[in-house]
Amino acid sequence: MTTPLKLDRLRVVLVTPHNPLNLGAAARAMSNFGFSHLRVVNPYDVAFRTARSAVGAAKVLTDAQEFPSVAEAVADCTLVVGTTAVRHRELHHPLQRLEYGARQIRKQLTSSPVALLFGSEKVGLSNEDLSHCHWLMRVPAYGDQISMNLGQAVAVCLYELIRKGRTPSTRAKEKLATSGKTELITRNLLDALQTSGYVKPGASSAAEEKLRRLIRRHNMAAPDAELWLGMLRQILWKVKSSPTG
Amino acid sequence: MTTPLKLDRLRVVLVTPHNPLNLGAAARAMSNFGFSHLRVVNPYDVAFRTARSAVGAAKVLTDAQEFPSVAEAVADCTLVVGTTAVRHRELHHPLQRLEYGARQIRKQLTSSPVALLFGSEKVGLSNEDLSHCHWLMRVPAYGDQISMNLGQAVAVCLYELIRKGRTPSTRAKEKLATSGKTELITRNLLDALQTSGYVKPGASSAAEEKLRRLIRRHNMAAPDAELWLGMLRQILWKVKSSPTG
Repeated sequence: MTTPLKLDRLRVVLVTPHNPLNLGAAARAMSNFGFSHLRVVNPYDVAFRTARSAVGAAKVLTDAQEFPSVAEAVADCTLVVGTTAVRHRELHHPLQRLEYGARQIRKQLTSSPVALLFGSEKVGLSNEDLSHCHWLMRVPAYGDQISMNLGQAVAVCLYELIRKGRTPSTRAKEKLATSGKTELITRNLLDALQTSGYVKPGASSAAEEKLRRLIRRHNMAAPDAELWLGMLRQILWKVKSSPTG
Repeated sequence: MTTPLKLDRLRVVLVTPHNPLNLGAAARAMSNFGFSHLRVVNPYDVAFRTARSAVGAAKVLTDAQEFPSVAEAVADCTLVVGTTAVRHRELHHPLQRLEYGARQIRKQLTSSPVALLFGSEKVGLSNEDLSHCHWLMRVPAYGDQISMNLGQAVAVCLYELIRKGRTPSTRAKEKLATSGKTELITRNLLDALQTSGYVKPGASSAAEEKLRRLIRRHNMAAPDAELWLGMLRQILWKVKSSPTG
């Protein structure tokens, strides 16, 4: 027995795209393969307006949602996957080959929304962007080739996702925490750590990313996340109400 | 036991490409996935020169070979595969899904050169172009979506080809006829048919394509092609030397 792939549960998230042609190409690949939810984080403003208003712009593009941060763009997703072509970069995340990663994404899509992140044309995803991801997927490249262009990377990843139009039926799965919830946990935890002096004010950005990855690695079920939030809020109230120094 | 995929045996053939950005994107996808032989048939001249001379143009592009016809561009290949995204067009060829077609191409690459044809951005491959193909491969598209852009179509097809880096070892295969030889057979046969009055002068283009498909369907071994050529030349000499009317 097979479950149909829920294409409308995938959010393709382009982080700070610069080139309107790439935006258009990404949208075109999406509609070509049957995906509809495009989210754009902090786009280079002129590029986004140009691409959107182009004659014959895909409906996917005119319907695209804009977000000021990755955190907000992935808040409703239970799985956040980053894409990378770089092989020599030091990564803090598990890295999956495209075909295996796509299989996991298909499985997750049967029950809840998944975000697939693509970085900007020049620099890819930043460490801050990556810290929102559960794991990374590598777009294959040969030897020391530079990365693909954005439209092609989107096309290849989406093609792999729809390559088999069905996935094996999965057991009734436990409901996973949304990224909005895990992000709340991260922030409460960070706040608690800063307030308590564990994290130095100057080092907070690296610490935040490290924490975020930690929480994502736990792959929390939704009720567990609620439990964590309750606990952290209590801790936070306590550390904030205690006298300094 | 597995045989390594011979990427350098694939010829990516772009037929009358118009847009320099697409040429650049196709070349980039090729080098990204490890392919090196780009052939361009009858390109829109300015586009080809522009793409070729672009700063940072891929080596694949500067090394690209130019041909005046599809026949010449595929002459050294034993398998010629056309790509199409269109589903409603009436086709005279077997049509393969991308994943199955790629498997056959990989198998053929272990022994001899294969051409993969992509049509122009607007109209795809013409019937004349298609008549040089043994079969067609469909780049998947959702519902009634228009075709992908050329760079993305090339990227997706090449990705599927390298998706598994190896193919099962094949038995020692019989050597197949090159497209140069099968084209010679086609032309000799057509000449013979025209001279003998079977093909009307006005109907020769459709007849030529029909013949070409016929010969390709036979999937001839190299020695058989030689035999055919010998026979046809003899026939041709005969029909030409007999008095008209």
